[in-house]
Amino acid sequence: MTANTDLLKKIERSLHDALLMGEAKNSPPTLQKAIQHAVFPGGARIRPQLCLAVASACGNDDANLSKAAATAIELLHCASLVHDDLPCFDNAATRRGLPSVHAQYGERIAVLTGDALIVMAFQFLASSGTRSPLRLAPLIKTIAASVGAPHGIVAGQAWECESKVVLKQYQKEKTGALFEAATAAGAQAAGADAATWRPLGEWLGEAYQVADDIRDVLADQKLLGKPIGQDIAHDRPSSAKDLGLVGAVQHFDELVFKAIHSIPACKGEKILRALVAKEANRLIPEAWFADTERPLHHFAAV
Amino acid sequence: MTANTDLLKKIERSLHDALLMGEAKNSPPTLQKAIQHAVFPGGARIRPQLCLAVASACGNDDANLSKAAATAIELLHCASLVHDDLPCFDNAATRRGLPSVHAQYGERIAVLTGDALIVMAFQFLASSGTRSPLRLAPLIKTIAASVGAPHGIVAGQAWECESKVVLKQYQKEKTGALFEAATAAGAQAAGADAATWRPLGEWLGEAYQVADDIRDVLADQKLLGKPIGQDIAHDRPSSAKDLGLVGAVQHFDELVFKAIHSIPACKGEKILRALVAKEANRLIPEAWFADTERPLHHFAAV
Repeated sequence: MTANTDLLKKIERSLHDALLMGEAKNSPPTLQKAIQHAVFPGGARIRPQLCLAVASACGNDDANLSKAAATAIELLHCASLVHDDLPCFDNAATRRGLPSVHAQYGERIAVLTGDALIVMAFQFLASSGTRSPLRLAPLIKTIAASVGAPHGIVAGQAWECESKVVLKQYQKEKTGALFEAATAAGAQAAGADAATWRPLGEWLGEAYQVADDIRDVLADQKLLGKPIGQDIAHDRPSSAKDLGLVGAVQHFDELVFKAIHSIPACKGEKILRALVAKEANRLIPEAWFADTERPLHHFAAV
Repeated sequence: MTANTDLLKKIERSLHDALLMGEAKNSPPTLQKAIQHAVFPGGARIRPQLCLAVASACGNDDANLSKAAATAIELLHCASLVHDDLPCFDNAATRRGLPSVHAQYGERIAVLTGDALIVMAFQFLASSGTRSPLRLAPLIKTIAASVGAPHGIVAGQAWECESKVVLKQYQKEKTGALFEAATAAGAQAAGADAATWRPLGEWLGEAYQVADDIRDVLADQKLLGKPIGQDIAHDRPSSAKDLGLVGAVQHFDELVFKAIHSIPACKGEKILRALVAKEANRLIPEAWFADTERPLHHFAAV
């Protein structure tokens, strides 16, 4: 799919530009390497893709700003992974098939790498907001709310330190919030209304979390590039544990269906639907459940 | 001094407002408590005081924005302390006479508290930039550069993970950068030129770091509210180690002298000079060196 390849190239280039901003000849070399390691090679870059796809659908009249918003969102996602992998949380030795940042560069550098990426996200956004300065504040508010307290990624992660957890809220904050921000920010960067686009991010974020739970139980370690069974090992909330495997897969399919049907009528509607369907099949491939009745046909034809 | 008391009250109120933004009835309670613990009770709040004093001197035509800049700077300072105290860095059990955040709430919550405070700083700034939207981007760039990579607090902290360190650069990044941002941001928030005000922050930041080294060797633990001798215990760079105690005190006095004399002619000049002199005496009291020849008389009369 050409559109996706172009989108991905644009995202990689922009991430590269953002990281350049944090580099200097006389800056501490290990931190510099660790920041690169945390961002490249990346995962599916689904959040920035979503952000750019929504911006496109909304006219994308400030391509520089939407690109910066998408990039900031991915930098914040990478930051959360680095801190999530820390010994005091998941103690994950690998990430995307490579050593995690703390495994490669030590715990101290991993803490600092996450911090640097959070700062860089807002710095890059501010550096790209010159053409549409009135859009900068709303964009920062949208993105910041999705990663901080009381209801962003940090809050989601903090539920892992509580004895009582509401699964839905935990999932919404830890994963859903940044998906929602990706669609809302994509709209805001293009001067469009954020609220119309929030449901897409919301449903997709929930689907993504359910997929993650399923993959944690099911998938081959090589495929994911990270240790599996982490949720059960760490006694974390998991919909695969709560609903059973088949129930969780059905739930996933329903969420993807809702996501696809939340996309408002617009120019980029078709590309967006295809992107979501493709991503759904990347997350929970049809082939894994060849012999199971799945409602995937709901969106297989979009 | 009434001016200072008013300034401090304003800062505490604004920090309180910023933290409210991160609170909700159904947010993870431990994180919420830990964020409060990280910010209240505070230290001397010298960075936000500096920021507001400079904004005042520059006319302060958007009091909401300068207050937000000062608040963001203090939140970022608090974040850096929380992460600095972590077991993998200083492993400090106390801070400002109380348990450090990780000692009180655990390592995971301490990592998340720092993250949340960094995000909150930019979020609060964006929320307060409505009256002068064109000032928001430059302000964020100034403040972000002073805490991130390649030359902000995070970079300074990352030098602690390197075998070769240039003391001057380490000090400049770990402490000086945020002081410089405090004066530059104070000016920018008031629509004034940042560059004119950077030297004040620069000299004062360097003085502060030297004072910290001196206090680390000298001061009574109760007075500082944190364990002493940490630099030597952790084999960190220290000017008290490099220059000797008397040399370090002389260096401190010279830096304060330069700071005071860098203040450009302006309406708030006198208040600023007094603030700096007062802070210098708070850091390294005359009484500690009653029988030593010190160049403190240079600014004792300002």
